[in-house]
Amino acid sequence: MSNKMWGGRFAEGPDAALEAINASIDFDRRFYAQDIRGSQAHVAMLADNGIVSKDDARAISEGLGKVLDEIEGGTFTFSRALEDIHLNIESRLAEIIGPAAGRLHTARSRNDQVATDFRLYVRDAVDALDEQLAGLQAALAEKALTHSATVMPGFTHLQSAQPVTFGHHLLAYVEMLGRDRGRFTDARNRMNENPLGAAALAGTGFPIDRFATAKALDFARPMANSLDAVSARDFVLEVLAAAAIASTHLSRLAEEIVIWTTPQFGFVKLSDKFTTGSSIMPQKRNPDAAELVRGKTGRVIGALVGLLTVIKGLPLAYSKDMQEDKEGTFDALDTLSVCLAAMTGMVRDMEPNSKVMRKAAGAGYATATDLADWLVRELKLPFREAHHVTGRIVARASEQGIALEKLRLEDLTAIEPKITDQVFSVLGVEKSVRSRTSYGGTAPPNVRKQARGWLKKLGKGVA
Amino acid sequence: MSNKMWGGRFAEGPDAALEAINASIDFDRRFYAQDIRGSQAHVAMLADNGIVSKDDARAISEGLGKVLDEIEGGTFTFSRALEDIHLNIESRLAEIIGPAAGRLHTARSRNDQVATDFRLYVRDAVDALDEQLAGLQAALAEKALTHSATVMPGFTHLQSAQPVTFGHHLLAYVEMLGRDRGRFTDARNRMNENPLGAAALAGTGFPIDRFATAKALDFARPMANSLDAVSARDFVLEVLAAAAIASTHLSRLAEEIVIWTTPQFGFVKLSDKFTTGSSIMPQKRNPDAAELVRGKTGRVIGALVGLLTVIKGLPLAYSKDMQEDKEGTFDALDTLSVCLAAMTGMVRDMEPNSKVMRKAAGAGYATATDLADWLVRELKLPFREAHHVTGRIVARASEQGIALEKLRLEDLTAIEPKITDQVFSVLGVEKSVRSRTSYGGTAPPNVRKQARGWLKKLGKGVA
Amino acid sequence: MSNKMWGGRFAEGPDAALEAINASIDFDRRFYAQDIRGSQAHVAMLADNGIVSKDDARAISEGLGKVLDEIEGGTFTFSRALEDIHLNIESRLAEIIGPAAGRLHTARSRNDQVATDFRLYVRDAVDALDEQLAGLQAALAEKALTHSATVMPGFTHLQSAQPVTFGHHLLAYVEMLGRDRGRFTDARNRMNENPLGAAALAGTGFPIDRFATAKALDFARPMANSLDAVSARDFVLEVLAAAAIASTHLSRLAEEIVIWTTPQFGFVKLSDKFTTGSSIMPQKRNPDAAELVRGKTGRVIGALVGLLTVIKGLPLAYSKDMQEDKEGTFDALDTLSVCLAAMTGMVRDMEPNSKVMRKAAGAGYATATDLADWLVRELKLPFREAHHVTGRIVARASEQGIALEKLRLEDLTAIEPKITDQVFSVLGVEKSVRSRTSYGGTAPPNVRKQARGWLKKLGKGVA
Amino acid sequence: MSNKMWGGRFAEGPDAALEAINASIDFDRRFYAQDIRGSQAHVAMLADNGIVSKDDARAISEGLGKVLDEIEGGTFTFSRALEDIHLNIESRLAEIIGPAAGRLHTARSRNDQVATDFRLYVRDAVDALDEQLAGLQAALAEKALTHSATVMPGFTHLQSAQPVTFGHHLLAYVEMLGRDRGRFTDARNRMNENPLGAAALAGTGFPIDRFATAKALDFARPMANSLDAVSARDFVLEVLAAAAIASTHLSRLAEEIVIWTTPQFGFVKLSDKFTTGSSIMPQKRNPDAAELVRGKTGRVIGALVGLLTVIKGLPLAYSKDMQEDKEGTFDALDTLSVCLAAMTGMVRDMEPNSKVMRKAAGAGYATATDLADWLVRELKLPFREAHHVTGRIVARASEQGIALEKLRLEDLTAIEPKITDQVFSVLGVEKSVRSRTSYGGTAPPNVRKQARGWLKKLGKGVA
Repeated sequence: MSNKMWGGRFAEGPDAALEAINASIDFDRRFYAQDIRGSQAHVAMLADNGIVSKDDARAISEGLGKVLDEIEGGTFTFSRALEDIHLNIESRLAEIIGPAAGRLHTARSRNDQVATDFRLYVRDAVDALDEQLAGLQAALAEKALTHSATVMPGFTHLQSAQPVTFGHHLLAYVEMLGRDRGRFTDARNRMNENPLGAAALAGTGFPIDRFATAKALDFARPMANSLDAVSARDFVLEVLAAAAIASTHLSRLAEEIVIWTTPQFGFVKLSDKFTTGSSIMPQKRNPDAAELVRGKTGRVIGALVGLLTVIKGLPLAYSKDMQEDKEGTFDALDTLSVCLAAMTGMVRDMEPNSKVMRKAAGAGYATATDLADWLVRELKLPFREAHHVTGRIVARASEQGIALEKLRLEDLTAIEPKITDQVFSVLGVEKSVRSRTSYGGTAPPNVRKQARGWLKKLGKGVA
Repeated sequence: MSNKMWGGRFAEGPDAALEAINASIDFDRRFYAQDIRGSQAHVAMLADNGIVSKDDARAISEGLGKVLDEIEGGTFTFSRALEDIHLNIESRLAEIIGPAAGRLHTARSRNDQVATDFRLYVRDAVDALDEQLAGLQAALAEKALTHSATVMPGFTHLQSAQPVTFGHHLLAYVEMLGRDRGRFTDARNRMNENPLGAAALAGTGFPIDRFATAKALDFARPMANSLDAVSARDFVLEVLAAAAIASTHLSRLAEEIVIWTTPQFGFVKLSDKFTTGSSIMPQKRNPDAAELVRGKTGRVIGALVGLLTVIKGLPLAYSKDMQEDKEGTFDALDTLSVCLAAMTGMVRDMEPNSKVMRKAAGAGYATATDLADWLVRELKLPFREAHHVTGRIVARASEQGIALEKLRLEDLTAIEPKITDQVFSVLGVEKSVRSRTSYGGTAPPNVRKQARGWLKKLGKGVA
Repeated sequence: MSNKMWGGRFAEGPDAALEAINASIDFDRRFYAQDIRGSQAHVAMLADNGIVSKDDARAISEGLGKVLDEIEGGTFTFSRALEDIHLNIESRLAEIIGPAAGRLHTARSRNDQVATDFRLYVRDAVDALDEQLAGLQAALAEKALTHSATVMPGFTHLQSAQPVTFGHHLLAYVEMLGRDRGRFTDARNRMNENPLGAAALAGTGFPIDRFATAKALDFARPMANSLDAVSARDFVLEVLAAAAIASTHLSRLAEEIVIWTTPQFGFVKLSDKFTTGSSIMPQKRNPDAAELVRGKTGRVIGALVGLLTVIKGLPLAYSKDMQEDKEGTFDALDTLSVCLAAMTGMVRDMEPNSKVMRKAAGAGYATATDLADWLVRELKLPFREAHHVTGRIVARASEQGIALEKLRLEDLTAIEPKITDQVFSVLGVEKSVRSRTSYGGTAPPNVRKQARGWLKKLGKGVA
Repeated sequence: MSNKMWGGRFAEGPDAALEAINASIDFDRRFYAQDIRGSQAHVAMLADNGIVSKDDARAISEGLGKVLDEIEGGTFTFSRALEDIHLNIESRLAEIIGPAAGRLHTARSRNDQVATDFRLYVRDAVDALDEQLAGLQAALAEKALTHSATVMPGFTHLQSAQPVTFGHHLLAYVEMLGRDRGRFTDARNRMNENPLGAAALAGTGFPIDRFATAKALDFARPMANSLDAVSARDFVLEVLAAAAIASTHLSRLAEEIVIWTTPQFGFVKLSDKFTTGSSIMPQKRNPDAAELVRGKTGRVIGALVGLLTVIKGLPLAYSKDMQEDKEGTFDALDTLSVCLAAMTGMVRDMEPNSKVMRKAAGAGYATATDLADWLVRELKLPFREAHHVTGRIVARASEQGIALEKLRLEDLTAIEPKITDQVFSVLGVEKSVRSRTSYGGTAPPNVRKQARGWLKKLGKGVA
């Protein structure tokens, strides 16, 4: 019984398998708007160059507008027998306007058509992702500005190393996301070339104007080699790589949120919206959204690997393997989009517990490096000697069970006589944080300046 | 405009994202049969052990049967608000049988429930795939039997190296698929343990009988550690790895088919069903199905990589990241299934062109190693000297522009006087092939024996 | 300057590149012992079947023994000009024993030779890994036995869910590793077939006995198809997949160790050997070894992906791409080995802080599910009603700021009159843990039994 | 025995494992030049800002120069006990110049030091790869110019579809490599920021000038966030992604070369340097170099996947996992370099067989689309009707067993009376190719113009 349930799909033999394996309409229908836009640009160019008549062009373009309305209005019937979105649309166009529809496909082929549609689609997706990335940057920068002086432990090896501010920590992600946006922008610019007019693979003898269709479709220029135009999928690989890298950034923040929201850390509280609870364990607040963002990194990486595998070793020009370029890409870009939306909401709502973080920042003699640096800077001790002295002072504090800044001056001078009470200016965690004024350092004025700079760049005015 | 089209999904903010990210009903509804089967086993066990009454158990079990009918009859309404398949079914059960439904969830948790469902599902899928793999083996072995003596070039580096038979070549794939089946079987046996009764993660204080539910669900035994029972996903990873390896095997055959069906090779003809053509280029027979099988390897590998990434570094026990285990797995197993169906059909219909293959097998002095081996075997020349002599003989044939077997004996003895006319017994391609009688070698009787052996093992009687 | 430094390697042009790309001796020298063992088995068989003389065979075998001594003694000079380990050894053999060396290569080819060497090597590696896996299981089981009753929080979503014991938690990994061993064993059995005698790809006309070489090399049988014998690399893929899955298990434990050793958790203390510190921050104990184990998962997965990519779409029989099968495999298996060694040491030395874990286990009303289960079990409340009652009781305890077991009976009966003081038997964390006696549950006697069972199976006597 | 051979490495227990797992000197010694360059820039800046004395700075800088000489002269002894390249160099510096060496590490940490070294190294590697990519582009463009009119079949599905020129085909790769270079350049620009001065993670209180060290090291600017500076590895991921994509391009050309050099295709002949042969089969020319280039794609993709896995889910700032960023990267960039060198040599030496390619281009009615296009263009038939007519004409030619251009005009007009003898201007393969003059099309003048344009851009003068 169970086999039937599962395997029934293809048990009836190869024919069902073939239909399943060949038809792409179930997923390439996503291209409908891009396909219609591309066809309208194409037919207008054909008319401008005397390849079809103005009348036919007008009929085709208006007919395509109607098809668009039908699809967006939900009244269009997609047919698997017509295989793909291109034939579905062209066939409906013929029903609407009659034989003139047959002129639309002049001087083009499904090879350059699908390449065009896919570029337009990915370009649209990249633009939308860029907006979402900017939105997450803004949420982080705003939170960073609010918490420019909220002290927390800076970790190495997940062990407290030196105090930083929560704002500073969040701004690290703003930088990463900034580079992610740079990657998407570069990919967008590189892919923004027009494959239309490459025809099947060799170009065409019709007097077409590929610069005109490029302009109409907001491409920077036509692609310079027709074989390349129909064979290239590196534009997808590059976008998937950018998505995978961006996903690792989200996954790092997600991991931190999962850790920060444990009762043991208690650094941060998420809003109810982004947690699930237990009716009988009120303290349990599961950071589901963060876990999902972390987990979904896997499928984005998987999509990248999948397409690299498909393209590897594929001869020019078009091979049917390339039909496998779409579903993984759709899924990966959707996934990144939903993760960005969830993370943006989480960041906006998230509240740090400054008391808990402040206490953790002060534990473990986290300002020992400040002391050592002070000895180097002010007393001109060589670095290694300064470390030796610091070790002895920390040991003294540890014996007394107190923090460094609670030691008396005579405790310090007993170990290194040149120490003055100026040393206390760097020993508390707030003092430590305030002292790190080097460019990019965690001192609150630095953090505020960076946060404001980002918000301005992101078009968010700050009072 | 275009952004809206694409990005609209999550532009309305985190709430839509959260619903999208949290609900699993869109994909875990596939588990409905396994979920109901598991619940029926569970409630029967609860009744047998006095944990619920016999009456309640009967009501629950019958109610679940009705839910099953509704789902398979297409009258069940799935609700996203009820998140997952478990709650969808339980909620409908409550509508049908009333409050007694509330007793079903005694002594279990969604954590062990989903682990059970997923194991049952994957086990069913593996059983179905095993059948399909056996079907492909049979198709290959039958074709191999028919072509046990059909000569073709054996390639290294895609260059003709030594003659083999087409049957022998196909049987290589039967061996690979046999190991693939072994991997699936081993994975099946290893995963065939019952997680049910692990409850949330720690086991339960109810006097449950996990051996009984194991038996009812055809599991070999209960899993021995409750934390492991709800945390483990290596059973999925192992099945995905087996699927990825099997996919590389299919991709190798697919690559060969693509090459063999080029006009340049012309070794094999696919049936119309598995090619697409061109209305205006009748010779063009695109091996679409083979290309798709080859390309789809990418998504199976991608699914494996995706889940390895998800699981890596995940603490025990359940984390929400693990919800990401399903979609990629469904897709990978469906993909392998459809590829097996397509490949089986292709192999069945495929016709070799023995004339073309025979000619290619004889080109390029492909029996030179037979000559060298003969010199070693019969004349006891050391291997290196035999090679030297062979090189000179081939050069002689090459000068004359003829095949080795067309040389006269005096041409041979001029180079190596001990050569006798016995040498001609290995020089033609059929003779070469017939001489390779070592176990596993390509001699036609070997091939027939192997093919018959496989067909018998596969339950296909051979006349 | 810097470019030269880096790129100098291949700037001198293709010739240097070719040498770099073609020669495999830098890595396949690792095969020396397997190669010699295989050659000795081969030549003994040749002699037994009258293909070479007994004298030649003896000379060859003894000569090979000398080569082995030279390599292991460090006096052997490897030559890049001789390309690979096979030619390096054969060439040295000729120097030692003279022309008889030329008879060794009779009835074999480098294709079946390298396939044999690699199988022997991977088989050896798998055996060594199995021992190491068993060693880690033993370390975990011993620690589990010691801590069969040491209470800690059981987590879901890294949030405390229900109390478990530390021993129970560790035993979950023993189960996972047990399955890892099963995977390696299955892979070993499947790969344990003899490719030797497949010759270049087609078998041979010499009257060889492949069953004899199989026996001599501890293979279960000869491979049944000569093309398959030289083309198959699924045995490596399967081992790499098993290694990748095992790595994810190690990475999960490593992640937990990193989290457990934070000051915030403080669950576990690693020994000095497995941490690095800071001379001036004595509290800082960086869990370097655990982080490396976690990180090294990446390269094992990378090696698997790399080889899947190589094999995908490769036609039969041997292609030079297959030379890429070795380096990644060596690195992945070495990596797993070093990770197992490090993890075994870490586990042996690791000390839990039971006080801290006990306290964490009791926080957050972690026994609320015990209360709900008690209500179902003892009072026969339906599950949903029991949950409702529990929620109200937890709220009452929360208002008073006390643990559940500190509530007075009248507080409880005020909410549900049927409650008796029997309820207190499940409310403390130790009581909760003790009550979970279902098979596989966390009750200390269960844990002890499982740990002892494993130790016995692993050959570790327990007093 | 065998286990010892292999597993001996870590059998002696955790201590050997730890040394193996912790020390990075075996691979990070590659950074020596970058490390010294960074230290010299750092100490000069410290002196300029009064943090160390001019004398100390001079002594340190000169001492570092001596260390560089020792390393490059091969007289430096690397020590595993000193763990990494940083400590090896600093320790030797102390031997050379005494205690002043202790001032070098002022205001920095190993965290920002290694981040700086790695960026410098990857930047150098990218520059070298860019040069090699340009070299391959030039080799392709030169060959394309020579063969701008050499006709070959343009393939879809590896089936002849329309004639193109060999030059046009090669230029498709020039375009791909151009985008690859763009990706590397963009990555280089994005990574070209200075991490130095981030210190351990929080910045420093010393009055350092990070803009000065940025300038000295040719970085565009300092990184703006100290946590990001030490945590970020997206610059490596981006370079690995660019390398993986470039590798797929090389693998596509390599696949084509493997296919083109089969006797069946015979399109292209490689030089002896890039093939291996058989002493007894002179026709066998194994395209080893092409196969290796194709196969090595796997390890580059594997390195990318490996590092994505490492970084996924890693909390800020430095974790020891990040030590895993180097070896895979070194290997991947070396691999791409050697593949580029090999491919460049192969392309330079490769000779097409124009006769064979010309014949293949004309087979299979490959100009049928030219005929159909002519009917549309000249007779204004609608596209679909033109296809119908073409199909009938091809059928007629096929019945007669002749090429399209061999049909008589009356054969054509019998099917479509409006056809004139103008139609013959597009029917031969050369005519077909010449007619495809659309921008990016395969017409020889197009190809020449593109090839010349590229050569000019690449700085190669063309006579």
